[in-house]
Amino acid sequence: MSRFSLPQDPAFQAMNTSLSFDRRLWPFDVAQSRAHARMLAARSIIGDDDLTAILAGLDAVEAELRDGSFPFREDDEDIHMAVERRLTEIVGAPGGKLHTGRSRNDQVITDLAMFTRDSAERIIGQLEALRRVVLEVAQAHLDWPLPGYTHLQRAQPVYLSHHLLAYFWMTTRDIARFRAVLDATAELPLGAGALAGVNFDTDRRMVATELGFDGVTANSVDSVSNRDFALDLLHALSVCATHLSRLGQEIVLWASTEFGFMTLSDAWSSGSSIMPQKKNPDAAELLRGKAPRVWAHQAALHGVIHALPLTYNKDLQEDKEHLFDAVDTVEICIAAAQGMLETAEFHREAMSAAASDQMIAAVDLADFLVVRGTPFREAHGVVARLVREAVEQGRTLADVTVAELGDDAASVFEQSSWLESKVSEGGTALARVREQLDLARAQLA
Amino acid sequence: MSRFSLPQDPAFQAMNTSLSFDRRLWPFDVAQSRAHARMLAARSIIGDDDLTAILAGLDAVEAELRDGSFPFREDDEDIHMAVERRLTEIVGAPGGKLHTGRSRNDQVITDLAMFTRDSAERIIGQLEALRRVVLEVAQAHLDWPLPGYTHLQRAQPVYLSHHLLAYFWMTTRDIARFRAVLDATAELPLGAGALAGVNFDTDRRMVATELGFDGVTANSVDSVSNRDFALDLLHALSVCATHLSRLGQEIVLWASTEFGFMTLSDAWSSGSSIMPQKKNPDAAELLRGKAPRVWAHQAALHGVIHALPLTYNKDLQEDKEHLFDAVDTVEICIAAAQGMLETAEFHREAMSAAASDQMIAAVDLADFLVVRGTPFREAHGVVARLVREAVEQGRTLADVTVAELGDDAASVFEQSSWLESKVSEGGTALARVREQLDLARAQLA
Amino acid sequence: MSRFSLPQDPAFQAMNTSLSFDRRLWPFDVAQSRAHARMLAARSIIGDDDLTAILAGLDAVEAELRDGSFPFREDDEDIHMAVERRLTEIVGAPGGKLHTGRSRNDQVITDLAMFTRDSAERIIGQLEALRRVVLEVAQAHLDWPLPGYTHLQRAQPVYLSHHLLAYFWMTTRDIARFRAVLDATAELPLGAGALAGVNFDTDRRMVATELGFDGVTANSVDSVSNRDFALDLLHALSVCATHLSRLGQEIVLWASTEFGFMTLSDAWSSGSSIMPQKKNPDAAELLRGKAPRVWAHQAALHGVIHALPLTYNKDLQEDKEHLFDAVDTVEICIAAAQGMLETAEFHREAMSAAASDQMIAAVDLADFLVVRGTPFREAHGVVARLVREAVEQGRTLADVTVAELGDDAASVFEQSSWLESKVSEGGTALARVREQLDLARAQLA
Amino acid sequence: MSRFSLPQDPAFQAMNTSLSFDRRLWPFDVAQSRAHARMLAARSIIGDDDLTAILAGLDAVEAELRDGSFPFREDDEDIHMAVERRLTEIVGAPGGKLHTGRSRNDQVITDLAMFTRDSAERIIGQLEALRRVVLEVAQAHLDWPLPGYTHLQRAQPVYLSHHLLAYFWMTTRDIARFRAVLDATAELPLGAGALAGVNFDTDRRMVATELGFDGVTANSVDSVSNRDFALDLLHALSVCATHLSRLGQEIVLWASTEFGFMTLSDAWSSGSSIMPQKKNPDAAELLRGKAPRVWAHQAALHGVIHALPLTYNKDLQEDKEHLFDAVDTVEICIAAAQGMLETAEFHREAMSAAASDQMIAAVDLADFLVVRGTPFREAHGVVARLVREAVEQGRTLADVTVAELGDDAASVFEQSSWLESKVSEGGTALARVREQLDLARAQLA
Repeated sequence: MSRFSLPQDPAFQAMNTSLSFDRRLWPFDVAQSRAHARMLAARSIIGDDDLTAILAGLDAVEAELRDGSFPFREDDEDIHMAVERRLTEIVGAPGGKLHTGRSRNDQVITDLAMFTRDSAERIIGQLEALRRVVLEVAQAHLDWPLPGYTHLQRAQPVYLSHHLLAYFWMTTRDIARFRAVLDATAELPLGAGALAGVNFDTDRRMVATELGFDGVTANSVDSVSNRDFALDLLHALSVCATHLSRLGQEIVLWASTEFGFMTLSDAWSSGSSIMPQKKNPDAAELLRGKAPRVWAHQAALHGVIHALPLTYNKDLQEDKEHLFDAVDTVEICIAAAQGMLETAEFHREAMSAAASDQMIAAVDLADFLVVRGTPFREAHGVVARLVREAVEQGRTLADVTVAELGDDAASVFEQSSWLESKVSEGGTALARVREQLDLARAQLA
Repeated sequence: MSRFSLPQDPAFQAMNTSLSFDRRLWPFDVAQSRAHARMLAARSIIGDDDLTAILAGLDAVEAELRDGSFPFREDDEDIHMAVERRLTEIVGAPGGKLHTGRSRNDQVITDLAMFTRDSAERIIGQLEALRRVVLEVAQAHLDWPLPGYTHLQRAQPVYLSHHLLAYFWMTTRDIARFRAVLDATAELPLGAGALAGVNFDTDRRMVATELGFDGVTANSVDSVSNRDFALDLLHALSVCATHLSRLGQEIVLWASTEFGFMTLSDAWSSGSSIMPQKKNPDAAELLRGKAPRVWAHQAALHGVIHALPLTYNKDLQEDKEHLFDAVDTVEICIAAAQGMLETAEFHREAMSAAASDQMIAAVDLADFLVVRGTPFREAHGVVARLVREAVEQGRTLADVTVAELGDDAASVFEQSSWLESKVSEGGTALARVREQLDLARAQLA
Repeated sequence: MSRFSLPQDPAFQAMNTSLSFDRRLWPFDVAQSRAHARMLAARSIIGDDDLTAILAGLDAVEAELRDGSFPFREDDEDIHMAVERRLTEIVGAPGGKLHTGRSRNDQVITDLAMFTRDSAERIIGQLEALRRVVLEVAQAHLDWPLPGYTHLQRAQPVYLSHHLLAYFWMTTRDIARFRAVLDATAELPLGAGALAGVNFDTDRRMVATELGFDGVTANSVDSVSNRDFALDLLHALSVCATHLSRLGQEIVLWASTEFGFMTLSDAWSSGSSIMPQKKNPDAAELLRGKAPRVWAHQAALHGVIHALPLTYNKDLQEDKEHLFDAVDTVEICIAAAQGMLETAEFHREAMSAAASDQMIAAVDLADFLVVRGTPFREAHGVVARLVREAVEQGRTLADVTVAELGDDAASVFEQSSWLESKVSEGGTALARVREQLDLARAQLA
Repeated sequence: MSRFSLPQDPAFQAMNTSLSFDRRLWPFDVAQSRAHARMLAARSIIGDDDLTAILAGLDAVEAELRDGSFPFREDDEDIHMAVERRLTEIVGAPGGKLHTGRSRNDQVITDLAMFTRDSAERIIGQLEALRRVVLEVAQAHLDWPLPGYTHLQRAQPVYLSHHLLAYFWMTTRDIARFRAVLDATAELPLGAGALAGVNFDTDRRMVATELGFDGVTANSVDSVSNRDFALDLLHALSVCATHLSRLGQEIVLWASTEFGFMTLSDAWSSGSSIMPQKKNPDAAELLRGKAPRVWAHQAALHGVIHALPLTYNKDLQEDKEHLFDAVDTVEICIAAAQGMLETAEFHREAMSAAASDQMIAAVDLADFLVVRGTPFREAHGVVARLVREAVEQGRTLADVTVAELGDDAASVFEQSSWLESKVSEGGTALARVREQLDLARAQLA
């Protein structure tokens, strides 16, 4: 019996139910219920018979959920109530004992922590695969020159391997961010009850061990109020999505006729409903277009939590949809990044031709003067003047330069010299890129 | 001489200059220039005479910046150009050699990394102080009962110490997040040049050591493209600000006449321009009101970086204002949180009276039935019915209960029993709160 | 036949398909296809036989979509292709003529404009109903005093009618914002083709008239690039959601034991899984908690469009989910606001008691001195001193005041005088509230 | 005298003061004070002598503010208190009467409404100038072909005039959005007092008329709670900034070596600290990079207002910095857009060459078959096959086509035909562009 004398308004029920989205939490809910029941029996809060019945019932419930035969009801408010309701239908009275020493508040946050850990682990796996592909593609294009850009203007040539490895290091930082999420969910909140702890001397560490947590949370009020780990996961997801949006942009640029640096596989391209010639990099555009929804979910969850008094408030139900969609989105994006990269074809000639634009030797020319003894700032001025003369007179920079600085300067205008002279640690000279590849391989091992 | 034949449009200059905000980076810019110059000399890229002149010049520049006499010029584009320009005015030709083997791209990101580390360290110090205050205030109100709320409805009583310690653990997680920012800035980007590395065999590790970095970045392209650590700092700041917004909300509620749980010090209160009686919790409201600007800066920086091709694009200049304002805002907020908490007065009687509302014994009554052998879900139903009868008949819950369940049930309605029965680990029973205080003190040590 | 030699990767298909969310556009897609076909026939671009076949086929397709029997296929990329594919299955060759003079680019944006108009109109209807309810509830509580708050401190008493009418005016502004969305979608984009217009002399105005648009867009490039009206709808939705979040917050406060100003109907309340006594204002909390997802969708769509070159880019496919969820969310929220308000019970005594707190007469006391001739700023100081004395000496403000200012001052401390003295236009004096009710009723008429 | 016994903590003062940013409101504050004082005298609430003194004093205060000699004090909490304080220093007792019948709550929101109106009007002027420039540049490049892009792939050729005019229509919609802001601020909030109205029978309409408002707000509670117009202005600013970010992106692309469609004036370009050859489109990049801060301010203000109970809460002080920075940012951006467009040089040959890529005739080829009687969907398939053959065999599309479809098909491959065949209303055919230019000119008139 409820304390209420009127049934809920259907419009309220429709607003209030979370079953449409929280049902995906069922594997975690069933697992935590098993662990909770075992602990209750171990502490003699329920009997061993009750435990046996509950475990058998949870097996039956799990089987129904797994094969899609679970009979959800209109008035199931959420997955937690649905599971307990069904369990009690199957096993009778013992089912009613499962919620002893537990509240939906600590139950929900425990499911969410388990989902968060599980998602972080799965995405770490995806990112490991992605960076392996990046490494392989870099290795396969070790000495292919292309222009490096600043301001989308050709700046200095680099090897394609060097450029691609930038994504290796971004992905490596992403992995570290997802690992921090594992740390942020290392403590089990279950056992906090509604907010104050429970009226039984439970063994929270036993539950933690069964569910794979390292320890238990220290404060029951904090346990049911806390959504930090959800924000941490959204942060990891957002930065990852922003990284992938940069990759998406580069693919869109490079696959354009104007750049012509790469061709996507037909398997990762779309056509047009009207223009038969079109081959569109839709997946790369979606890498761009999906990043904002991820960080918008993060901002939204800040908005939800903002100014909420402790402890649980219904507003917090909003955490799940934001988190779920962000996880799903990033998983799709990582798969697309990997799929496009491992099937794309790069065009050596187009890249190399762009990379031999004499203008991008200007800094090397300035450094040539520095080595001759001119202060850098002055050398920069000299070369700027030569560039201007070349542009205004329609001559090549080499031509203007040799005329003014003598034949020695001609050596600066060999493409390979611009690349191989970048000998500083982390630079694009081949020896340095090989060092970097070794370092990257060591990271993977 | 420039390669340009027209001067910049004043409207463009006004848009393009970053000096108004990046001048606060000068301490980092001077420090990195010293380290860079020493390395250039150690590698014989500049002479020892040049080094001596540069170091002396940088001392002079620093002195001017420190005492406010530095002669900024209209056409100084940013702090980096201003420092180099002034250095060269003071020391002549050697000043022009400082930028050898360095680009503004790696210079800027190095300054920003140094600012980020410095900010994170300073805020960690503030947070350490804050959690010490939280601990002291909790200790001082160890056994003061107040209602714990869910849905802003009285739910179960807790001790004020227990409630306040929730903020201790939030702050502890905040500190971990700022420590992660130190890890995210452990590698020196300087030496990446414009994007490809530099034409000199520099010693980046020497510079790293002097500037307090643990190592050097692995890839020059990534080094000048990367803004991850800025996003990491903004994440740490955002979560911290969101935490403080919850504290602000609780202070606003508790300081209202309706709750009456606390009075802020006059030193942390405002009056009204028109209503002479008003004592307003402005600082607590600003704790709330300032959180959105912090996570909005985070969202904005994602927006800035979103879909940017590698490497440097001018858009990235936007990183600084977002970061600076977020840091400044959170520093003010932490100081306010500490100031309010350490001077506030709590009202034991009002809290205690609210915490003795019989209705919040309902779960204890249900558990009383559980111990007698009723399954929890059934016990919950019984108590819900008793609550409804009490509400409808205008009787106390104790009265209705004893009439139905017998005199034994009366014991449930003693306030202390509701608190002291929460014996589970992390619960509000005094023994558990004392454990928690010990744990917190160990964290501080 | 496609220009591609490889099938799409399944991971790409899963990312690329929009059918799961854009299928709700089918009523608009079918309607525009009918109008487009009629125009093609009117301009003799297709034959009358073709038109007859297409219209009959669209009827069949519509019937299938309406009754759920439409046979969607795995490889239907979106609702537009699904409808055309199915049409052609049913009617053969004429189905293949429907896309003449049309591109998916202008087709999609036309569907979206129609959805936007339709949503705005429906929400205007909901808001009309809501403000009618607000007006009725205000009328029913015309002269019930409650404290007005600033800083959540009691400030000055107002009538409940006056306070509630604030929401009437907010809703009125909301309606204006949705009407602006109708203006923003007044011009039909269909006919823009892929981006450049089409190779046929179509009659766009004929299509516009049939579909209820006022005119046609002026520029084909703009037509397929433009998402302004989606941003305008998101703006209207966001402000509306933010308004409702304030109402939600006030309900949460007023329904708390501490305020005790109102009781929600059981039909709009929830219980607790563990605390049998709880009656929680979940719907009001969700009014708060759902607002951030609405403005986050708005921010996300800005993020999507940000820096996109003209014309269509696949990123724009992201517009739909943001828009759909925001519309659905706000519709639920408006219904909840109406449902709660029309069934809530207000507690006259509790409000009135709170409103007779003498402290909130302080400004009236100051104005009393002003009328006697003291400059306001000085009078403010005098009253502030009296307040301080009352607080420090534990006396009532009336007591301290009469002792110092004489018996005349006693009249200030009658509750009704504080309310009825607010005679300025738009103030809370009853005569002014009645004026306001008349004005509101006139708006509704 | 204050009701407080302790001075404010300096950290609190630093947090609480708004003078650093709200001082720019002074012109509005002085104007409203003049109007308010005149009304008080007209209603005999203050004497004519008082009015004379106040007006003279306000003149003096204004003069000081204008020439920078106004003596701000450390403890001036905001511009409103500073102005009143200084006025009273200058004119004595009458200064203390100015705040009669007014509260800071209605005073602040009135200043903000005036600022909002003023900003909207000024930006409308800027946008009028911008769209005039767009029109002129379009006119000057009426028949210059360039490729229109979808997915950044060449799709169909358009005239540059047609492409640029897309920005004309975006700007036109922007102007409408700023005009809506003028409507949203048409009613004067002054006179609402703290929240309840005031104790005097003021003449709010007199004040409204003097200050240029159309009427007065209907409800005092709403008047001081409402920030809708600030959100409306932020919406107008955000959409405008997003539009400009697209222009910025197109300039960045077109100014790249790969596209080569335009050269920015040296007056709107930057160099590099290290690469002497660089000419960077910094202003265009900042058009992109600054848009996120604008919509982030909008999201932040939603966050601030979210869940705030009526009426004034200190959180609302945060409205100003968000609004001010957004206004300043957009003003700079509009100026930059205009400056770049009116000085840029377009490269007819590069654009025309790109626009004659045969592949972009594919849809015209399909429509050629449609006119011959093939259903469009089938014709699309035929052309897709021809494209694939051309790509795979390294032949031109014209070659493959004529071989298969006969000599008639050759006509399709003349560039001008692709452009001039787009005869539908709003299409790129010259006759249609001329119509559009006429329409645009009519809008300007």
